[in-house]
Amino acid sequence: MKFRLQLSDIATIIGATIEGDPTIVVTGLAPLKSATADDLSFLARGEFASHAERTSAAAVITTPALARHLPPTTARLLHAAPERALADLLDHLVASTKVTGGVIHHTASIAPSSTLAKTVRIAAGVVIGEHCTIGEDVEIGMNVVIEDHVTIGDRTVIASGAIVCRGSVIGADCRIGPGAVIGSDGFGFIESSDKSYRRLHHIGNVVIEDQVEIGANACIDRALLGSTIVRRGTKIDNLVHIAHNVAIGEHTAIAAQAGIAGSTTVGKRNRIGGQAGLTGHIATCDDVTIGAQAGVSKSITEPGEYSGTPAQELKRRLRSEAALRRLVELLPLLESLLQKTAPKPTDQLRDEQD
Amino acid sequence: MKFRLQLSDIATIIGATIEGDPTIVVTGLAPLKSATADDLSFLARGEFASHAERTSAAAVITTPALARHLPPTTARLLHAAPERALADLLDHLVASTKVTGGVIHHTASIAPSSTLAKTVRIAAGVVIGEHCTIGEDVEIGMNVVIEDHVTIGDRTVIASGAIVCRGSVIGADCRIGPGAVIGSDGFGFIESSDKSYRRLHHIGNVVIEDQVEIGANACIDRALLGSTIVRRGTKIDNLVHIAHNVAIGEHTAIAAQAGIAGSTTVGKRNRIGGQAGLTGHIATCDDVTIGAQAGVSKSITEPGEYSGTPAQELKRRLRSEAALRRLVELLPLLESLLQKTAPKPTDQLRDEQD
Amino acid sequence: MKFRLQLSDIATIIGATIEGDPTIVVTGLAPLKSATADDLSFLARGEFASHAERTSAAAVITTPALARHLPPTTARLLHAAPERALADLLDHLVASTKVTGGVIHHTASIAPSSTLAKTVRIAAGVVIGEHCTIGEDVEIGMNVVIEDHVTIGDRTVIASGAIVCRGSVIGADCRIGPGAVIGSDGFGFIESSDKSYRRLHHIGNVVIEDQVEIGANACIDRALLGSTIVRRGTKIDNLVHIAHNVAIGEHTAIAAQAGIAGSTTVGKRNRIGGQAGLTGHIATCDDVTIGAQAGVSKSITEPGEYSGTPAQELKRRLRSEAALRRLVELLPLLESLLQKTAPKPTDQLRDEQD
Repeated sequence: MKFRLQLSDIATIIGATIEGDPTIVVTGLAPLKSATADDLSFLARGEFASHAERTSAAAVITTPALARHLPPTTARLLHAAPERALADLLDHLVASTKVTGGVIHHTASIAPSSTLAKTVRIAAGVVIGEHCTIGEDVEIGMNVVIEDHVTIGDRTVIASGAIVCRGSVIGADCRIGPGAVIGSDGFGFIESSDKSYRRLHHIGNVVIEDQVEIGANACIDRALLGSTIVRRGTKIDNLVHIAHNVAIGEHTAIAAQAGIAGSTTVGKRNRIGGQAGLTGHIATCDDVTIGAQAGVSKSITEPGEYSGTPAQELKRRLRSEAALRRLVELLPLLESLLQKTAPKPTDQLRDEQD
Repeated sequence: MKFRLQLSDIATIIGATIEGDPTIVVTGLAPLKSATADDLSFLARGEFASHAERTSAAAVITTPALARHLPPTTARLLHAAPERALADLLDHLVASTKVTGGVIHHTASIAPSSTLAKTVRIAAGVVIGEHCTIGEDVEIGMNVVIEDHVTIGDRTVIASGAIVCRGSVIGADCRIGPGAVIGSDGFGFIESSDKSYRRLHHIGNVVIEDQVEIGANACIDRALLGSTIVRRGTKIDNLVHIAHNVAIGEHTAIAAQAGIAGSTTVGKRNRIGGQAGLTGHIATCDDVTIGAQAGVSKSITEPGEYSGTPAQELKRRLRSEAALRRLVELLPLLESLLQKTAPKPTDQLRDEQD
Repeated sequence: MKFRLQLSDIATIIGATIEGDPTIVVTGLAPLKSATADDLSFLARGEFASHAERTSAAAVITTPALARHLPPTTARLLHAAPERALADLLDHLVASTKVTGGVIHHTASIAPSSTLAKTVRIAAGVVIGEHCTIGEDVEIGMNVVIEDHVTIGDRTVIASGAIVCRGSVIGADCRIGPGAVIGSDGFGFIESSDKSYRRLHHIGNVVIEDQVEIGANACIDRALLGSTIVRRGTKIDNLVHIAHNVAIGEHTAIAAQAGIAGSTTVGKRNRIGGQAGLTGHIATCDDVTIGAQAGVSKSITEPGEYSGTPAQELKRRLRSEAALRRLVELLPLLESLLQKTAPKPTDQLRDEQD
């Protein structure tokens, strides 16, 4: 994204103090390492100080304390919270390039029974089924599918190629990623006595509350009966699987490739690491953090950090891992001790194993 | 899904006995917890008895034994197998709302060399390539892609946004989930001496037999030569990866995000847990159950339950885990014992490590 | 794929010596097990000798040493490197059926500000946004989405249903798999004091160099600032997740369902196993092999093989696993030793645990 802003303008947008020439013009925003003399960059944490020392950026958003790591000639935009300042600037840049006003591409196919707000923006190749309701300023990307009876709240963005299946309800200010599938059939079958399967038709739906984000190619299955629910403010990363009848609490974050099996309930403000798995029909309480690749097979009733497979409380797991490492260290001593005390350990061992 | 049925009608559909007023009308089907006074619900297992006690449902499908958990005023539809009764009712509801009769949306693009049965239903935005054959009562969802030389059997449903690549053969009564990819290129390369890769063009295909279901955004790669095969009745969940030249036996179930690497053969009636992985060029026999997140690196030749990474027979794994837990418990005792018997354990340990 | 070639023609194409009748005609290429009397097959490794003995193939590409495993009546195409010979034949077959010459399907929607080479082939339902540049002989499959400001190099193939988001740069001779998402929003948020999230708009892009392959339904997120980069010759399998600001070195291979978290750098010629995970903000050096399902939580600075969670050097992991197995074996002896030496081990244990 290219733009053209004076440091003085940027200082106003983000509420920063300028150290350097306020008339300097920057045309891009880049990481410290790759920034050129036309770019603005940012330094929010001491661990990137070495990048800061060699940056070619024209100016850097940073804190008064971190500014000393920058080359003396680099202009600074001083701010107590550089990440927040960056977020403000990004918001400004995105808002200033945002095209508004309703438009429906002539290749879109929209069933006449659906109701679209005047300000909806619909890209090429979009298909919208019967009896949908689409709110104000909603953006629907290229080749998106919206099946029948779908509701989408104001200002929500459905990215290109996403598939919103029938009956789904999506709130306001949500972002559904490219290729994401909302409301697919649940994986529910009855096993017959010959171990073949009979489908249970899933007639429920998916309900996504406001300010939820769903990543690229993530999948959220609809409920058998009732609703699979993702509550307000929750953020779900790419390729995550949310099964039928799951409920995810508010302001929870689920990293890429994690999976939540059927009918499980996740609390508020959970942080679930990448590739973690939660088994079906369990619950986590509020404020639980689950490590990457963890396998959670039982309900979690106490806030805290959990990891490993089967997942356990972090401190406990670290303690038992340390004990195992110590045992490995002690093995030679234990072997020689056993040799001294037990006359024929090998025979005895053989007996034990029989 | 809304409907309007008297309890007497439902009793006939599912073969149940009514306890209560047979003229009660229900208009929805909901879980015990969220059911309203207009809803029918169901109770199949004792573990949900607490939900049953507080349900507002007008009527509940349950067994004679479980019925005692319901409020006395709730009508009952008594059935020996409530899950089967529910499946029957869902089948009835879905069948009664099903639109039939051939239709091709005017925005669909269908190559003239393809042969479609008269009763095929094709939604908006669908693209069908050359030389395809599509059977009776097939439903093809919005923006689906069917490449050249694809065959699809009777009554199969291809959900919105699915991609069926050239040469794929899909049987009758299958369901391909939204965004699923059938017949993508296999991941096969020759490594050169400089460790760069040369592509092996994959000219095989994917064959899916009857009554198979494939989940949302799942991927099944085509074979290098010959076919990647998914046999009759097998059910595959969301985001599963099936590599080139894999063969999956009949009536197997594979949960979400599991992956099967190239040329592996999975037996009949296997149950593979979520996020489990099978390495390439191995085989499992019939009637194998593999736990969630398991890593199977060797062929399995005996029916049974396997789990863990590397996967081992469940009983054996539980035994060795119990032993490790016991060793952790014993560590303090072992340390003090070693201190007593070995005069300078630390020095000795140091020696061992050198 | 069906064809019609004499063995003499094939011998010329792949540079092999014929043993048998050079006028034999084959019409297909099949694995040893399923080949019919009209098929050519191949035998590259001794482990498939048992399949070779029972093959019905008319002829087999193999080495002089392996040829003895074939039935005496089977014709042979002898070659020192049968896999390379097969790759040559597959290249020939694919090239001979390849349709060339520019064509744009009438249902494609292409913004007038985009520049397409004359030889571009664009299938039905494709959408191309504003200001894109598409090189010579590029193939764009059915219902593909190319958003604004995308550049695609010569001879690259974008398979059906892939989604290339705005600003992405894709090199020459690449293959982007069906349903893959290139350039989705990064998963980056600022956590507020109430643990709710604020989006960081990602204004960077994805850069894919030449000869890169990306699997079906894989996802590569765009950078916050700057670029997420996949370097020349790298191959990425199905359902892989590459987060924002990741950089992947040349000639690296990443197997299915692996995930690389944000800002991590992967070296050249890495081999990353299926379902492996790399945490964010780390780096691997060149020539690292990471096992399937491994969890890499720290940077790797030495070439070699790593596996397990947390990942460690393979030899070290195997050694400590062997020690743990030995400890489990010794447990009964240790228990009886402790019983002999410690008068009341149970009481003591209880004390230790308090």
